[in-house]
Amino acid sequence: MQFTAQQISSILNGTVEGDASAAVERLAKIEEATEGSLSFLANPKYEPYLYTTGATIVIVNNDQVLSAPVDATLIRVENAYSAITVLLNMYNTIKLNKSGVEQPSFVHPTATVGEDAYIGAFAYIGPNVKIGNNCKIYPGVYIADGVTLGNDVTLFSGVKVYFDCVLGNRVIVHSGTIIGADGFGFAPQADGSYQKISQIGNVIIEDDVEVGSNTTIDRATMGSTIIRKGVKLDNLIQIAHNVEIGENTVIAAQTGVSGSTKIGENVILGGQVGVVGHISIAKGTQVQAQSGISKNIKEENSKLAGSPAFAYSSNMRSNVAYQRLPELERKVQELEKLIKEIKSLT
Amino acid sequence: MQFTAQQISSILNGTVEGDASAAVERLAKIEEATEGSLSFLANPKYEPYLYTTGATIVIVNNDQVLSAPVDATLIRVENAYSAITVLLNMYNTIKLNKSGVEQPSFVHPTATVGEDAYIGAFAYIGPNVKIGNNCKIYPGVYIADGVTLGNDVTLFSGVKVYFDCVLGNRVIVHSGTIIGADGFGFAPQADGSYQKISQIGNVIIEDDVEVGSNTTIDRATMGSTIIRKGVKLDNLIQIAHNVEIGENTVIAAQTGVSGSTKIGENVILGGQVGVVGHISIAKGTQVQAQSGISKNIKEENSKLAGSPAFAYSSNMRSNVAYQRLPELERKVQELEKLIKEIKSLT
Amino acid sequence: MQFTAQQISSILNGTVEGDASAAVERLAKIEEATEGSLSFLANPKYEPYLYTTGATIVIVNNDQVLSAPVDATLIRVENAYSAITVLLNMYNTIKLNKSGVEQPSFVHPTATVGEDAYIGAFAYIGPNVKIGNNCKIYPGVYIADGVTLGNDVTLFSGVKVYFDCVLGNRVIVHSGTIIGADGFGFAPQADGSYQKISQIGNVIIEDDVEVGSNTTIDRATMGSTIIRKGVKLDNLIQIAHNVEIGENTVIAAQTGVSGSTKIGENVILGGQVGVVGHISIAKGTQVQAQSGISKNIKEENSKLAGSPAFAYSSNMRSNVAYQRLPELERKVQELEKLIKEIKSLT
Repeated sequence: MQFTAQQISSILNGTVEGDASAAVERLAKIEEATEGSLSFLANPKYEPYLYTTGATIVIVNNDQVLSAPVDATLIRVENAYSAITVLLNMYNTIKLNKSGVEQPSFVHPTATVGEDAYIGAFAYIGPNVKIGNNCKIYPGVYIADGVTLGNDVTLFSGVKVYFDCVLGNRVIVHSGTIIGADGFGFAPQADGSYQKISQIGNVIIEDDVEVGSNTTIDRATMGSTIIRKGVKLDNLIQIAHNVEIGENTVIAAQTGVSGSTKIGENVILGGQVGVVGHISIAKGTQVQAQSGISKNIKEENSKLAGSPAFAYSSNMRSNVAYQRLPELERKVQELEKLIKEIKSLT
Repeated sequence: MQFTAQQISSILNGTVEGDASAAVERLAKIEEATEGSLSFLANPKYEPYLYTTGATIVIVNNDQVLSAPVDATLIRVENAYSAITVLLNMYNTIKLNKSGVEQPSFVHPTATVGEDAYIGAFAYIGPNVKIGNNCKIYPGVYIADGVTLGNDVTLFSGVKVYFDCVLGNRVIVHSGTIIGADGFGFAPQADGSYQKISQIGNVIIEDDVEVGSNTTIDRATMGSTIIRKGVKLDNLIQIAHNVEIGENTVIAAQTGVSGSTKIGENVILGGQVGVVGHISIAKGTQVQAQSGISKNIKEENSKLAGSPAFAYSSNMRSNVAYQRLPELERKVQELEKLIKEIKSLT
Repeated sequence: MQFTAQQISSILNGTVEGDASAAVERLAKIEEATEGSLSFLANPKYEPYLYTTGATIVIVNNDQVLSAPVDATLIRVENAYSAITVLLNMYNTIKLNKSGVEQPSFVHPTATVGEDAYIGAFAYIGPNVKIGNNCKIYPGVYIADGVTLGNDVTLFSGVKVYFDCVLGNRVIVHSGTIIGADGFGFAPQADGSYQKISQIGNVIIEDDVEVGSNTTIDRATMGSTIIRKGVKLDNLIQIAHNVEIGENTVIAAQTGVSGSTKIGENVILGGQVGVVGHISIAKGTQVQAQSGISKNIKEENSKLAGSPAFAYSSNMRSNVAYQRLPELERKVQELEKLIKEIKSLT
């Protein structure tokens, strides 16, 4: 697909400077762009590349002053960074603009599917499933009995949703993520074995949530595991049964949240963080990667680090001291010797 | 599906107190229950809710004394907690009561499938596979050549089992789990590259094992990776080649066990634990979340924590001292200064 | 499949000692082997088993001296260890020697597939996909629009490759691994919510890379996430957007590399390591399991450990001192007391 400077400029309400018929077919960073590429200059640090870039078209701010001749056609806009975000989204929308029902796919006769759906080959839509409008169900997705999806939901290839789970509008789930598998609940028996506790709750994912790939979100024992509006989860995250994640909370890859824990709104958890079960984390809490949260965090907007975690800035100081710990031991030994000497004198 | 108080009571050998024809269609916690819900009171702490609950039916202990009027119909039983477990299991059995062969599915002519199987659409059962009775093979499961499954095995949607692996009776594996992929074995070459070492062993999973979602259990280089009877593995766990996990051992999410390590019976590993390769862990060992086990654990029933791990209680003390480490450094500096002063005096 | 000592010997250019018609049908460790097994003796430590093994055939070095009678047929070769590697590879090649196109599978009319392909049932090959010769696409694999695969690529069951990604020759990817899902990019908004930043780059995987199961490699925001030639990635690894992993680097299970980080050649990362974003790691760096790399590693061939990581040997010393930290605190308290006493005397 090719676009001319003229076409792009009119999408962005911009002004063309140079050859309005110059055409591009891909986006590239200004320092790597080659002929046929569209690029942009938002960060002044990159200005030198403007004069050497191989890009055919470059989007710049209206107030960009040129200190040398430029080969590329320029499109001037109010804000080059916002403009490129608009274009990225357009590009992505076109790329992912799937529609229709591919065969073979499996749609149970009791399932209802809204308008303009894409249902990929080998997708499975079980009994009593309800799917809203404009949903994209990629190949190999599995949606079990009684699941409800809102409008504009995208489930990428291989997502599995167990029975009775509920996903809101505009939810995006990436490949390999499992929603609603059994929580990890077993009752120890006298003979050392474990008896399974049936997990009959579900998972509720509210509007505008995005979940990365190969993440697991377990169904509640009873009631619901809840992912609130606007939450963003990265890849390979573990969310245990009966957890609740507050609105607009962001969690990086490989983090795990244990059962029944409640995480507040606008929390940020770094990657590989572990959170124990049955605690609450106050809203606005920020936790550094690889930390371990082992107790309630009651103060809002705390910054924490370490395993077990404590205040971020104190943790940084302890980390530095840790590298000198053997030296500290030696010093103390010396002091002991010195004091012994002194005592023998006095 | 609706059930009356009379029906539920006869399942539980209970006594109805109130309207025996009152009907429910879901289970709920007593504090959250609304009309049409069945609830239970097992923990005396929750008794106040008995008088305010919206539940239509509540299961209580035979000896429950009422200190105020109750709207709900009561079912009195010997033990309300056990009764609810029985009902949860019944509910789950009904929910997961799939049977028959959905199309399209792929069953190789040389495969044998026992009685009363459920084979979901897009499931793949390869050459020479042997499947016992009452197995549930959900949509999109892949079972490669020569795999053997016992009776009453459930493989949820998207489980993949590589060739020649063996699963016992009543094994449950959740979605996205991979059994029998190649162990991570490569021989370093003189030029810095690596030569793959073929992994020709298999994975053996004994009876009554449950495995969570998106867990990976690698096949042995030679011989078998073995998961013994009654083991419970959570989500996103890594079990490397030639590992052996002892009977009734429980491992929480995101833990990894490196190659050839042997873990004893009734061990409990918390989440995000790492275990190095080629070691043994004695039976009954308990390891705290995020710990790292780097050497043999010979003493049975040890409690360990930290990375590298040592005795749990010592680790707790070191963790506390860690937060005061910068302060300790300052104190030692002061002592050094004081001693210098004293020495100059003596 | 049975092989005689004569057949195996001629594959390995060896010499048979004993019954040349003795036949085997599996490989086993010398200490565990039973009748019908082929085994080998490479490590002198295991020599005693040579005289007691149940193996039918044992491969030994040419210079192996026998100190007692041996029941098994021997095959003498230059190097028993290399010989067994050759046989393992042969065995594996035979085991995995799939070919043909199984039905139902989905191959878009605009896709091109090279010679001698295996395409499993329920595999999905999208529009404009280009697949080289001798590729094995297992059941349930999903290959999205415009993906390119080289020759001799193996994608095991359930691998998902998003649009426009490129895989080189002889790449092996194990089940459940997701290549090219969206990077984790969101712009914070004034109201606390997040706006998705479209991820329009791709993933490039060069020749001879092997990727384990349930690993996730995200597509670049713009440009490419790059896995260089000969890289070996284990299971459940997270590779974020715009990361570059240098040639012949090896990464163990459950490690995560954050966005835009560049890892050099011949690096070794242990399991459960975390690497922050936007840093560079020099070639030859070795990082111990569970470490956290939080800044650039500029010195080549560094050995690092800890979270945050520092020099491996220093870290070992600090770890040891950590176990004595409460004791150190007590000593310092005592010293403070003693000095107070001394000061009161002087």
